[in-house]
Amino acid sequence: MRLSRFFLPILRETPKEADIVSHRLLLRAGMIRQEGAGIYAFLPLGLRVLNKVCRIVREEQDRSGAIEMLMPTIQSAELWKESGRYDDYGKEMLRIKDRHEREMLYGPTNEEMVTEIFRAYVRSYKDLPLNLYHLQWKFRDEVRPRFGLMRGREFLMKDAYSFDLDQEGARHSYNKMFVAYLRTFARLGLRAIPMVADTGPIGGNLSHEFIILAQTGESEVFCHRDFLEVAVPDASVDFDDVAGVQAIVDRWTSLYAATSEKHDEAAFAAIPEADRVSARGIEVGHIFYFGTKYSAPMKAVVAHPDGSEKPVHMGSYGIGPSRLVAALIEASHDEAGIVWPEPVAPFRVGIANLKQGDAATDAAAGELYAALQARGVEVLYHDLDERPGSKFATLDLIGVPWQILVGPKGLKEGKVELKRRAGGDRELLSPADVLERLAPVRA
Amino acid sequence: MRLSRFFLPILRETPKEADIVSHRLLLRAGMIRQEGAGIYAFLPLGLRVLNKVCRIVREEQDRSGAIEMLMPTIQSAELWKESGRYDDYGKEMLRIKDRHEREMLYGPTNEEMVTEIFRAYVRSYKDLPLNLYHLQWKFRDEVRPRFGLMRGREFLMKDAYSFDLDQEGARHSYNKMFVAYLRTFARLGLRAIPMVADTGPIGGNLSHEFIILAQTGESEVFCHRDFLEVAVPDASVDFDDVAGVQAIVDRWTSLYAATSEKHDEAAFAAIPEADRVSARGIEVGHIFYFGTKYSAPMKAVVAHPDGSEKPVHMGSYGIGPSRLVAALIEASHDEAGIVWPEPVAPFRVGIANLKQGDAATDAAAGELYAALQARGVEVLYHDLDERPGSKFATLDLIGVPWQILVGPKGLKEGKVELKRRAGGDRELLSPADVLERLAPVRA
Repeated sequence: MRLSRFFLPILRETPKEADIVSHRLLLRAGMIRQEGAGIYAFLPLGLRVLNKVCRIVREEQDRSGAIEMLMPTIQSAELWKESGRYDDYGKEMLRIKDRHEREMLYGPTNEEMVTEIFRAYVRSYKDLPLNLYHLQWKFRDEVRPRFGLMRGREFLMKDAYSFDLDQEGARHSYNKMFVAYLRTFARLGLRAIPMVADTGPIGGNLSHEFIILAQTGESEVFCHRDFLEVAVPDASVDFDDVAGVQAIVDRWTSLYAATSEKHDEAAFAAIPEADRVSARGIEVGHIFYFGTKYSAPMKAVVAHPDGSEKPVHMGSYGIGPSRLVAALIEASHDEAGIVWPEPVAPFRVGIANLKQGDAATDAAAGELYAALQARGVEVLYHDLDERPGSKFATLDLIGVPWQILVGPKGLKEGKVELKRRAGGDRELLSPADVLERLAPVRA
Repeated sequence: MRLSRFFLPILRETPKEADIVSHRLLLRAGMIRQEGAGIYAFLPLGLRVLNKVCRIVREEQDRSGAIEMLMPTIQSAELWKESGRYDDYGKEMLRIKDRHEREMLYGPTNEEMVTEIFRAYVRSYKDLPLNLYHLQWKFRDEVRPRFGLMRGREFLMKDAYSFDLDQEGARHSYNKMFVAYLRTFARLGLRAIPMVADTGPIGGNLSHEFIILAQTGESEVFCHRDFLEVAVPDASVDFDDVAGVQAIVDRWTSLYAATSEKHDEAAFAAIPEADRVSARGIEVGHIFYFGTKYSAPMKAVVAHPDGSEKPVHMGSYGIGPSRLVAALIEASHDEAGIVWPEPVAPFRVGIANLKQGDAATDAAAGELYAALQARGVEVLYHDLDERPGSKFATLDLIGVPWQILVGPKGLKEGKVELKRRAGGDRELLSPADVLERLAPVRA
């Protein structure tokens, strides 16, 4: 993409309304714009990152055997009266009446709707297990929305729902999602630690939050140092291997880890002092097993092999991709701006033409741009008539992992500069070597 | 995808509530489920088609130079009071009050919001032209929602908004989108005819609807027969070539074409009788140029080269991908079910194992499935324990373009049957020849 053909409204000033670093950088980097309290538009750069996050989330959901569908944002109040949550949910639920005065709501979550879909079609143990997920906008009418995308009112959520014949099957479904989440966060460049959690308004018996460590995290967390080193399962993990998946979960739940609400001072004190980690964390995922909490009142029953009919056992599993965009920035930034992990960077490579209009730099930058594009690299070419310092600042602010600086001095010696955003290392290389470094042609 | 691991709730009965063929087939094929009046969930098969449509829409928007962003579904009423449409829009607008009694609404369209975003960042002619688009759910509170996805209340829309310095620039932006739409519909396997249209609540001076011909179409249309043959511009079209793009638009607007509202009996009668086409049509896209209708009241002004500041010239351009899923079915189905054009088929290939549990058919079907997947083909393997007739019916109903029938008789001669959904042609081929036919390995 040529910057002259993109829409990247960088803010030079730090916005006053933003209290936390991710919110400030999202606004300064031209990624989002506030359209109401807790309601944001994703500008083109922000959407690119959101899409990258969603793609990784999807790939890992699919790998674990979950099936994607898409439920609507607007739900009927009737469903929530069946489950009993319509009155319980309180003011966080955005309630709506249509032109015929029918009671509706903007979905804050989808347990009821997915249970309705399940009971409409599935009758037999033969159709289980089943895990349906979707990525859809949710609305929670927080009394005081703040912190930008970290606590918005309209936010994107990936929510998955598992259906099993009994508790044993449901446990495996829970474990599969547990492992899928470990892989998802690792691929996003984050170290996430699962912690036993309260179940809150979703309800249920078993729940883990996935917390990433970030200096600017919203909550205090405590864990064993070994958590920073445990290996994340690779892509060959067999999700049908019940014992194998259980073993991974056991490994990841055998060490002490707790948020401040669940913190056990005595258990923490029992860890050798050198292994105690006390840090700040951000919740980026939450998984629940809640048995028949919805299926029983909503009569989502399945026939067992013995002919009996019983309510299906369910769990739900949430990741907030829009919140993750902010969490990624909280976890990875510096004085100059965002430092994207490569898998979620809006562009992998940036090219700064340091003397726009100069025949040599225009030609060299243009050729590198064309060659990288031809090799399938996502590249942003800063081709505006701006000072070099301004171009450096923009590429650093928006966090492009690899930056190619094309200036007249270097070109006289046939060289351009390749800069790594993380760490700031620079190297003088020929354009051919830069290409080979960033996008080697495989034999 | 193995059907045993997918969620495809086929209905054997024709649903009574569905008045039109697309609605009936969407329900029977397990693609959608109604969750409220005019509100639908996309089940996994339906979502796959919706995503294909969206992908083609995006690729052609991007090719034309439009830039993707993503605006929220919930909008502030304030913006609509600025433009004057808050009171005008009537009961089709879903009005909402949040917990603080602030007036909000579920966006039926985004002219106001995108104008607000534009005026916040763009000040100069140097930043023009600009075309921003997004794909987002909209809500229009139709008094009598019906016809399934054809006239839903919650529906997906791709809406693009162009910004230009003056009418001349805006004309080129309009023409670019005109050409992008021609390409989009052609790639979806549809013949769309642009017809001069009323501007309705969007307003403006210039507007075209894109209408596809379908026997079951909602409205009567009249056009010159040559429209069925005009060549659609190929992918090499240069969107920066003002005269070239204008010439394409001229070609596509030089022949008579009108919906019944705009029909001119005299002009139609002037066409030689053999060239008059009178048919049924479905609107699948609508584009508008409306000048400064929003930018003037909302003070979205840009500095011209002479230093003067004037309201920016705008247009908007809509395609409804969820509606298109239904329109595609209206345009392409038969007694047995849907006949998807390949570019939007949920799976390109289906495999029916005609004797599930038989060692030979299980092995042959399994190998073909693995080989097609390895070659990147989207394939649905019907591996359930069902009679052959039931498997044929399912693959025909859901419209898989290529079907491989693996039975014990054929296998004895080393053959499987390859069936084309459109037309029903069958051929006996070796599995290797089937692979070569569907996914040739390129040297």
